Amino acid sequence: MRKYRLTLAYDGRGLVGWQRQASGTSVQSLLEDVLAVLDGRPVAVEGAGRTDAGVHALGQVASFTLERDIDASTLVRALNFHLPDSVRAVDAAPVDETFHARFSARGKHYRYHLWNGAAVPPMLKRYVWHVPPPSLDGSAMNEAARLLEGDHDFAAFQSVGTDVPTTRRVIASSSVRTIAGPEAGLIAGLEAMAGALVVYDVEGDGFLRHMVRSIVGTLVEIGQGRRPPDWMRAVLESGDRTQAGRTAPAEGLFLVAVSYAAPAGTLTDRMVQ
Amino acid sequence: MRKYRLTLAYDGRGLVGWQRQASGTSVQSLLEDVLAVLDGRPVAVEGAGRTDAGVHALGQVASFTLERDIDASTLVRALNFHLPDSVRAVDAAPVDETFHARFSARGKHYRYHLWNGAAVPPMLKRYVWHVPPPSLDGSAMNEAARLLEGDHDFAAFQSVGTDVPTTRRVIASSSVRTIAGPEAGLIAGLEAMAGALVVYDVEGDGFLRHMVRSIVGTLVEIGQGRRPPDWMRAVLESGDRTQAGRTAPAEGLFLVAVSYAAPAGTLTDRMVQ
Repeated sequence: MRKYRLTLAYDGRGLVGWQRQASGTSVQSLLEDVLAVLDGRPVAVEGAGRTDAGVHALGQVASFTLERDIDASTLVRALNFHLPDSVRAVDAAPVDETFHARFSARGKHYRYHLWNGAAVPPMLKRYVWHVPPPSLDGSAMNEAARLLEGDHDFAAFQSVGTDVPTTRRVIASSSVRTIAGPEAGLIAGLEAMAGALVVYDVEGDGFLRHMVRSIVGTLVEIGQGRRPPDWMRAVLESGDRTQAGRTAPAEGLFLVAVSYAAPAGTLTDRMVQ
Repeated sequence: MRKYRLTLAYDGRGLVGWQRQASGTSVQSLLEDVLAVLDGRPVAVEGAGRTDAGVHALGQVASFTLERDIDASTLVRALNFHLPDSVRAVDAAPVDETFHARFSARGKHYRYHLWNGAAVPPMLKRYVWHVPPPSLDGSAMNEAARLLEGDHDFAAFQSVGTDVPTTRRVIASSSVRTIAGPEAGLIAGLEAMAGALVVYDVEGDGFLRHMVRSIVGTLVEIGQGRRPPDWMRAVLESGDRTQAGRTAPAEGLFLVAVSYAAPAGTLTDRMVQ
């Protein structure tokens, strides 16, 4: 019996999200099905974050226990042999049996991509929310994003009908940057298109359901000049979901990394990604 | 009657290439079908480069004549309204009637992406050739790539059975760079994966059929240490296709830009992209 921590990257398009559903393909069900074959018995997989349908991951973390003692690099190769190309095992490591991908997590890093140009680069279509011109005011958006840093009640940015013990979260960093020209991406072909990639990065100890996407919807209203940067503070303090902007679409969102404490020297305290 | 120059970006997956075929979807047929609707009569479209099935473009150039005098920005919007998301009009401009996307072209810039890591980042799957570890020797590949610069007979890098008046071409630049870590790509999720993106860029006055892809196949044999950098010169001088490496797959190849001379002040002499 050995417990493993697994880091995963996936393209969320065509998936119903992280969590197993009655129908549709989820990352959890893909993993559990492959692990059951490798271990010769059913395996339950825990995930750090329940990414929604269409949300991507660069560094999702999962944990599970196997009867067989499999070398970590062999496990990564075996998983990548069986999983579809859209889901890749990036790294695996044996961990203490008390480790739990979700409950042991100390923080998460999410990123959101907006494409602010007339036409969306074809290679980026699946990975951005298209916000057509006029130009977004990236500096106003960044000013508003910074107002979320610290310990706050984020009830205003939680999807309606969710039931959690507390809506307080600590946000370590929240910022917006605008990337244009050749810097924008060797690969994605951004350099060929008129427009800019606006990137929102947020790190915190936890996130409510749809929290990042409703923050982004609010930031876009500020970027479009419909509201001043200070409006972010007013929405936050209202605690009222109906005050915030719309929920931005799933395809622009990435779970970049999950961080853990270092228990008994088995894990470092840096971001696992 | 007005002649237009159109710059296009496309994701080549699922397309049979630039040129209209008996069956399958080509960029040319998509464009001609939309333009026929906009102009109310059949329109013939000329393309700068006949990209093969699966090859991508950031700055393909097309030319055509319309009966209607349509404002260039309106034309771009109308095309993007009707074309599929995988094909985007980037820019349009009225040009002299003597302009021809193919025959007026003075040079082309192609780029090829290799992913040199155990697992391919899911967001890059469609845009790279996967070359698993061990690590490619990027510096040996660059040394070999540089040997192609200048005026040479490229018969050794032409697909068998092609008939062209001359196999001499002038290569202005040919180089390989290796990109790893965060620099590798904000968007593509490369930062999450162990490995490196190896990028080949080549600019020249023209290219033979499969020339870039057979150069890349040859570069990979050198990067893998099977052959020394000087082997590139021996292959080139042999004039024999069977001496070169395999033809690299289409999905790693991008037509980045096409350059034109500046006739009568209507076009600048810089790359159109």
